[in-house]
Amino acid sequence: MATESWIPNYDTNSEFSLANIPFGIITTRDDPAPRAAIAIGSSVLDLKALTTSLDLDKLTKVFPGVDIPKLADTLAQPTLNAFAQLGRPVHRVVRKGIQDLLRKDTPFQPILGENEDLKSKALLHQRDARMHLPMAIGDYTDFYAGYHHAYAVGVMFRGPENALQPNYTHLPVGYHGRASSIVVSGTPIRRPVGQILLDPATKQPVTEPSRKLDIELELGCFIAKPNDIGEAVSVKDAEEHIFGYVLLNDWSARDIQTWEYVPLGPFNGKNFASTISPWVVLADALEPFRTNAIENKTELQGYLKEGRDDSVFDIKLEVDLTTAEGDTTTIGRTSSKHLMWSFPQMIAHHTLGGCPLRSGDLLGSGTISGPGGVGERGSLLEMNEGGKKEILLYGMDARTFLKDGDTVTLRGSCGEAGQKVGFGSCVGRIYSAAQR
Amino acid sequence: MATESWIPNYDTNSEFSLANIPFGIITTRDDPAPRAAIAIGSSVLDLKALTTSLDLDKLTKVFPGVDIPKLADTLAQPTLNAFAQLGRPVHRVVRKGIQDLLRKDTPFQPILGENEDLKSKALLHQRDARMHLPMAIGDYTDFYAGYHHAYAVGVMFRGPENALQPNYTHLPVGYHGRASSIVVSGTPIRRPVGQILLDPATKQPVTEPSRKLDIELELGCFIAKPNDIGEAVSVKDAEEHIFGYVLLNDWSARDIQTWEYVPLGPFNGKNFASTISPWVVLADALEPFRTNAIENKTELQGYLKEGRDDSVFDIKLEVDLTTAEGDTTTIGRTSSKHLMWSFPQMIAHHTLGGCPLRSGDLLGSGTISGPGGVGERGSLLEMNEGGKKEILLYGMDARTFLKDGDTVTLRGSCGEAGQKVGFGSCVGRIYSAAQR
Ligand SMILES: [Ca+2]
Ligand SMILES: [Ca+2]
Ligand SMILES: [Mg+2]
Ligand SMILES: [Mg+2]
Ligand code: NI
Repeated sequence: MATESWIPNYDTNSEFSLANIPFGIITTRDDPAPRAAIAIGSSVLDLKALTTSLDLDKLTKVFPGVDIPKLADTLAQPTLNAFAQLGRPVHRVVRKGIQDLLRKDTPFQPILGENEDLKSKALLHQRDARMHLPMAIGDYTDFYAGYHHAYAVGVMFRGPENALQPNYTHLPVGYHGRASSIVVSGTPIRRPVGQILLDPATKQPVTEPSRKLDIELELGCFIAKPNDIGEAVSVKDAEEHIFGYVLLNDWSARDIQTWEYVPLGPFNGKNFASTISPWVVLADALEPFRTNAIENKTELQGYLKEGRDDSVFDIKLEVDLTTAEGDTTTIGRTSSKHLMWSFPQMIAHHTLGGCPLRSGDLLGSGTISGPGGVGERGSLLEMNEGGKKEILLYGMDARTFLKDGDTVTLRGSCGEAGQKVGFGSCVGRIYSAAQR
Repeated sequence: MATESWIPNYDTNSEFSLANIPFGIITTRDDPAPRAAIAIGSSVLDLKALTTSLDLDKLTKVFPGVDIPKLADTLAQPTLNAFAQLGRPVHRVVRKGIQDLLRKDTPFQPILGENEDLKSKALLHQRDARMHLPMAIGDYTDFYAGYHHAYAVGVMFRGPENALQPNYTHLPVGYHGRASSIVVSGTPIRRPVGQILLDPATKQPVTEPSRKLDIELELGCFIAKPNDIGEAVSVKDAEEHIFGYVLLNDWSARDIQTWEYVPLGPFNGKNFASTISPWVVLADALEPFRTNAIENKTELQGYLKEGRDDSVFDIKLEVDLTTAEGDTTTIGRTSSKHLMWSFPQMIAHHTLGGCPLRSGDLLGSGTISGPGGVGERGSLLEMNEGGKKEILLYGMDARTFLKDGDTVTLRGSCGEAGQKVGFGSCVGRIYSAAQR
């Protein structure tokens, strides 16, 4: 099957290849109403324009078996929640139909590829689309499944003997995060003010801008199919509850977190902002990139047994830091495979007691770090070895934590040229704390 | 001013007196569309019926200075979020207008009290209205401001020397809770299944229904006016961000919580359900019941200094346990004044780093226990002294934790007969865990 698209200027090296087809929410100058779109190469296909312009016959041919008026209604909405709720079997047909429409030399090409009027309405350049949060996020849960991160941070705080808590290999540890402060890539991030214990000996905090502003490189997972309160999702059914994935930067103020987090967990050290990439890569698009999770030698509880080892994805992840002067250094390179728990296991655990997940809820993987050296780590805290070492940057600069004016960009991608599946970028620039 | 209403069968002893006027969301057999209402005595006034039936002149007379079409629109919605967002100055006028309409012997009496047609449309008996969640809750945060509870639980786990963490008197400790599992009073509560470490020596958990299912007696606070991301709310402005209050039962599975909560806080031990009372008591209705919070001898950070001591409310709180056999015992009696932190302080702290609160967000006070004996405590864990003593019940029965079939009812009320301001009840009955 051809892997090329007839799209103008289609770059076979694009991470938004035909094999991807990620979904997002756009607005444009001509139409300020937020609506669904997909990314293809350096273009965007406006799905509201597509489904309102084509007649029912053509749409039925492209999306066989799908309730077309219902589909068109979900794609005209300002978030992807209703589309997500249609479920993975529908997402599969819709993604395949869009691939057919966009692929070179197929019987579908006349429908869009040779329809100049429709192309002028529905196809636009990515730079002409403004991206928005793809989902209305009801609840956000952050897990801690990045084993190497959990271990490295544990060593810093408690030494190698007690680095991990006894529960770590028995269950995917997680905590409830803050949904209201999740922002889309590009949103400026204000340095938070908080209570900080500058001198632990005094036990007397100050209220100041964080001096230890950090990042956390994570994979985010959006929920498609909801579960009722009181009804657990089995680990085998959990895949059908997943809509897709985004990159997640869980900004963290380490000094605020250290003072506040006992005994109930992180709060203001986390809730000032979390950034996600705008394009949701559908679960099906990542299927070819499955690989084994980190081996867990603990005998698992039955509800966590997946019956497969290839439960995570090998997505190449990178972290760039760009200084105010414009010098960019790639400070971290790792893979999303470095997780001890899969998202189906997280879903099975989250719902074990009956907690309802809703369409649009977001799960974070926890910080992802590799097993190797400093260059494989997903947080500055690990790169600077607990604040003790500087991270060297281009432009004769160095950091322990983030400075005002720094921009952090996460990237994630898998596959070979022509078949690449990527996330685009997840960007945030730090600006100065509120005056007090 | 008369404190009596012309409402049929108005009981001057009602906690839904003219001095109260709490807001809720109802449906009825005749109109299944959820909409706003207030409670008065044993009746309910349908505010959608009221505002759509009366003409603009009359509504302007009752609610002077208020944008009437906008008000009518908010009262016809399925949640109170839009009404909350109108802000406290509008809530004040609307509450006063409703009091005028319902009070005996005023010039307003003809508008509703002598309009038989309107009365038949808008006034109904409470038993004919079904109550729903009053707000769409974006995020839920649970604080830990009940000093006596925090101390008592701390003694159990760490002894009296280290009962409270060093941060406790410096900041209102809180954590993010789960919004999706907040249910309205009357919703049955399924006993959660979870990982439990039955024998701490083995470090080998089992997956079983919780054996230590508990309650937490809390006051809940709904947010009215939102704040932008990056913009802190000052403690002096925080009152204007408060919509009103409900009773909150933060059901807790102590055995699940104990195993899971290090290092990131409570998760499945809490997220299976939290119950709130259906009527939101507006902030203004509680103003007469202000009293001093628990004294905090620590020198506070500037952003937490309120400049007043009477920052909490003296609401009499009660906890009833009713067995499957129907025997009811009041197992706890305390007051909402037993808090070391006020809601304005919680709001100032929550937003210090820039976290946005949205209209409809819910804050929990933390479990409220008195300084005295076992009968003043807001959780079974405290009443049973860490699981060591049985709580004696009527009907020759006893509990350490909750049994299937038990019903827990929270009640809260303040003021004298004729001026009572109460919350109604917050009820949940436990049913058996999922079969596995
Ligand atoms: Ca994180
Ligand atoms: Ca609580
Ligand atoms: Mg965050
Ligand atoms: Mg709860
Ligand atoms: Ni939430």
